[in-house]
Amino acid sequence: MKSKAVVLVSGGLDSAVTLFLAIKKGYECYPITFDYGQRHRREIAQAKKIAQAAGLKLSIVKLQLPWKGSSLLDKGIKVPQDRTIREIKKGIPSTYVPARNTILLGLAASFAEAIGARSIFIGAHFEDSSGYPDCRIEYLKAFDKVIRLGTKLGLENKLKLEFPLINKTKSRIIALGLSLKVPLGLTWSCYNGEGKPCMRCDSCILRSKGFREANVKDPLYA
Amino acid sequence: MKSKAVVLVSGGLDSAVTLFLAIKKGYECYPITFDYGQRHRREIAQAKKIAQAAGLKLSIVKLQLPWKGSSLLDKGIKVPQDRTIREIKKGIPSTYVPARNTILLGLAASFAEAIGARSIFIGAHFEDSSGYPDCRIEYLKAFDKVIRLGTKLGLENKLKLEFPLINKTKSRIIALGLSLKVPLGLTWSCYNGEGKPCMRCDSCILRSKGFREANVKDPLYA
Repeated sequence: MKSKAVVLVSGGLDSAVTLFLAIKKGYECYPITFDYGQRHRREIAQAKKIAQAAGLKLSIVKLQLPWKGSSLLDKGIKVPQDRTIREIKKGIPSTYVPARNTILLGLAASFAEAIGARSIFIGAHFEDSSGYPDCRIEYLKAFDKVIRLGTKLGLENKLKLEFPLINKTKSRIIALGLSLKVPLGLTWSCYNGEGKPCMRCDSCILRSKGFREANVKDPLYA
Repeated sequence: MKSKAVVLVSGGLDSAVTLFLAIKKGYECYPITFDYGQRHRREIAQAKKIAQAAGLKLSIVKLQLPWKGSSLLDKGIKVPQDRTIREIKKGIPSTYVPARNTILLGLAASFAEAIGARSIFIGAHFEDSSGYPDCRIEYLKAFDKVIRLGTKLGLENKLKLEFPLINKTKSRIIALGLSLKVPLGLTWSCYNGEGKPCMRCDSCILRSKGFREANVKDPLYA
């Protein structure tokens, strides 16, 4: 019997590659996404399509957060535009959602225990990321310890966190996605969820840098 | 200016004492509770009253979890009854909600960052508890590390987790509550949220043991 794995799927490129990687590794995968009032709600629609493309049903957790503190939650705060890669890699931008990965990983851990999964997969990586503290390897290792100490399955050594992309660049993630036949054209990265990608937000800039370095045309524009 | 603190308030006795303790320590407190589909929904009403008694407004986070895995979420699973203290202290009971404190502390950390709080208070304790893995000191220390590594304020050494009751017995918590003038009669412990406390679930049994050992009459029955 296959081991079960919960996979965080955001609708973005990294988590889609992670889902297909977990499937390739032989897990019976349970993709999960979160409706937490984010600005780029299109990601949820894309997450559904990505799960469908893998033949899987997406679980959606709805959260009503009575606070903001991020330009992804608060339309009154501007999303940074037209920054250079050097600017993007320096400091924590307004798009940082306070403790987001801790909330989402906590929910994923709960789901994993409820269905008896052995692994939780997250597509976090730091190189070519927006400098979020909760995408760093130190943080992910600390969260793995929280799971091992704070859940029933973790205490029995039956649940762990996996972050297979952590040290990869965006171009290597794209190359991996192509080799796994991930439908990259279904993934959505832009912080503005409407129409075409803006090509001006950090997320668009990092994505296009990745495709350029991978020497591949982004299928989103094909 | 006072430092802000987020305090997890469940409607139960331990978190009410923790709230009044944080106020006594001089914090400007922001109580928070969670509506996650729990069986004992009366706790939410009591949490509101406890916050009111402290002159504070309670923030409520709503969560829709599409899974169960606990007798507190699933009315089809029986809540244990009439167990001895020895039985209660052995193993993890069906009332354990998978990764609950990790979810709630993640949300509290997000709230804390959004309002610029310096501390998050949780009333967890292990002695005289139901043996939940996420009420142990090892777990809470690991979660503190997650906050310090995975949030912007934590990285700046400006946010930490406090768990002042962790090594206290229930009777000592009750005595502390009385000295802080906590309205213990407003607190609700029973896993069955209707009518009078059942006096048969683990939570009722631990509460009544605490009052007995503190040599005090429970004001809930006054």
